[in-house]
Amino acid sequence: MKRIGIYGLGLIGGSLGLALRATGRYRIYGADRNPEHLKKALERGLADTELMPADIPQMDGIILAVPADALPVLARQLLGKLNPRAWMFDTGSVKRPVTEAIKDHPRRGRFVAAHPIAGTEYSGPEAAFVSLFGGKINIICDPEASDDDALEAVATLFGHDLGMNVHYLPSDVHDKHIAYVSHLSHVSAFTLGKTVLDVENDEHNIFLMAGSGFASTVRLAKSSPDTWTPVLLQNRKALLPVLKTYGQNLEIFIDLLEKEDAGGLHRLLTDTNRIGRIIDRIAEKYGKQ
Amino acid sequence: MKRIGIYGLGLIGGSLGLALRATGRYRIYGADRNPEHLKKALERGLADTELMPADIPQMDGIILAVPADALPVLARQLLGKLNPRAWMFDTGSVKRPVTEAIKDHPRRGRFVAAHPIAGTEYSGPEAAFVSLFGGKINIICDPEASDDDALEAVATLFGHDLGMNVHYLPSDVHDKHIAYVSHLSHVSAFTLGKTVLDVENDEHNIFLMAGSGFASTVRLAKSSPDTWTPVLLQNRKALLPVLKTYGQNLEIFIDLLEKEDAGGLHRLLTDTNRIGRIIDRIAEKYGKQ
Repeated sequence: MKRIGIYGLGLIGGSLGLALRATGRYRIYGADRNPEHLKKALERGLADTELMPADIPQMDGIILAVPADALPVLARQLLGKLNPRAWMFDTGSVKRPVTEAIKDHPRRGRFVAAHPIAGTEYSGPEAAFVSLFGGKINIICDPEASDDDALEAVATLFGHDLGMNVHYLPSDVHDKHIAYVSHLSHVSAFTLGKTVLDVENDEHNIFLMAGSGFASTVRLAKSSPDTWTPVLLQNRKALLPVLKTYGQNLEIFIDLLEKEDAGGLHRLLTDTNRIGRIIDRIAEKYGKQ
Repeated sequence: MKRIGIYGLGLIGGSLGLALRATGRYRIYGADRNPEHLKKALERGLADTELMPADIPQMDGIILAVPADALPVLARQLLGKLNPRAWMFDTGSVKRPVTEAIKDHPRRGRFVAAHPIAGTEYSGPEAAFVSLFGGKINIICDPEASDDDALEAVATLFGHDLGMNVHYLPSDVHDKHIAYVSHLSHVSAFTLGKTVLDVENDEHNIFLMAGSGFASTVRLAKSSPDTWTPVLLQNRKALLPVLKTYGQNLEIFIDLLEKEDAGGLHRLLTDTNRIGRIIDRIAEKYGKQ
């Protein structure tokens, strides 16, 4: 029975605990800076027991599933306390800040920078579920910076134990592309939600007139501010240029409407329909959305 | 057996044909300006038979489910040919242009301005399905402009035959609020789709890194340009101010990121989370999204 310590027992860390416990091959030690979350996580069986500081050197692996702003400091601290043969990985959706923070650490090789691309708009230990990861993609960044045995152990955990498809990318490439397809979507949804709340004084009207299209487009605006404030800030260098492109495309749309340019608008919508083919492939990948 | 003529056998008109035929109380006569769509619609049983010009005076009711730009002219033309005791309704998502176009017509009372709030990102006769409308909301606009018997027949069709919840609003109020919760969502999704296609040269990266959040947020960018170009143009007076508010909210977001204002960003996300309560009510209304 391998011993794994998980820091952060929310949606991601808690679901990892559940899924790894379900294999019967791991004993999970859990920690959370929020005592209520720790209590709830132990009640729900997201971990077998509480992770105490004295347990750290006994762990075969450590998983960091904490908010993006806490991650770089925690990774540096724990690398120094880790058993020399143990591995550590994180699950954050921004990879450069953590890999930069530990790049000169003597135990850098024990660390694997990972991003399991899975989640929902819910957060906290109540949101965790055992099947969050199966069939989805996990990105491992900068594999050449990790020791071979640590890399293999972590890739096996993701691929074999969790049933994920493992891909490898440099962290700067990861951060740029994840800004496009994930972080931008969150800004778009939050901006939509804020705008509707700004202009629509009567919630009854939103409820009455909104269909499933609105619910789908705005869904990510339910996401946790504790998780997403640091993610968006930490990836701001990749995100800001694409937000400006988004703003320019919005201006193009407004301009076509103001000019009543039906031909131009029709061409823009038709060209953008190409995204449908990609969405359909994502839907195949994940099953029905 | 009541005879109903449906103009436009796409997602909306075709699903109406299927659902009304399924009650066993209606014989459906269908017309579509696209001969391929008409053929496919008859093959799929969206209508019993083709609607010929000579059939019009024999119809008990006429349904207009054509694109928003074709609607005002078609409504005027057909009101003159309608049996004097028959009713007519449309299904468009913008109501002022059609109600303005017929407001002085001697048979205005036979017309009921309707907007069944139901749809998917798919279009055409292949997209039609029998259960599109059940449990959803139908808005009838300016009921005082319709004759009592026409209004009652149409409300019964929506409420009893299709199982929809019928609400009443003035058309200008409808158009303003539908811009907020439906038309803005479409612009937001198309702008997201266009931006990702602009910045992401490699479709493989979108496929690799995109999760269900991106698919959900961008889904409406699959919507038909033939349907949505005229809708957005016809409702531009209500839509443009809200698009400008959306652009201002995007600027606020960009500014907070540039200033690295974690407190301000966290407050913005937390405040916007209020939209979640409304989404949850929409999900209850429609079942799981």
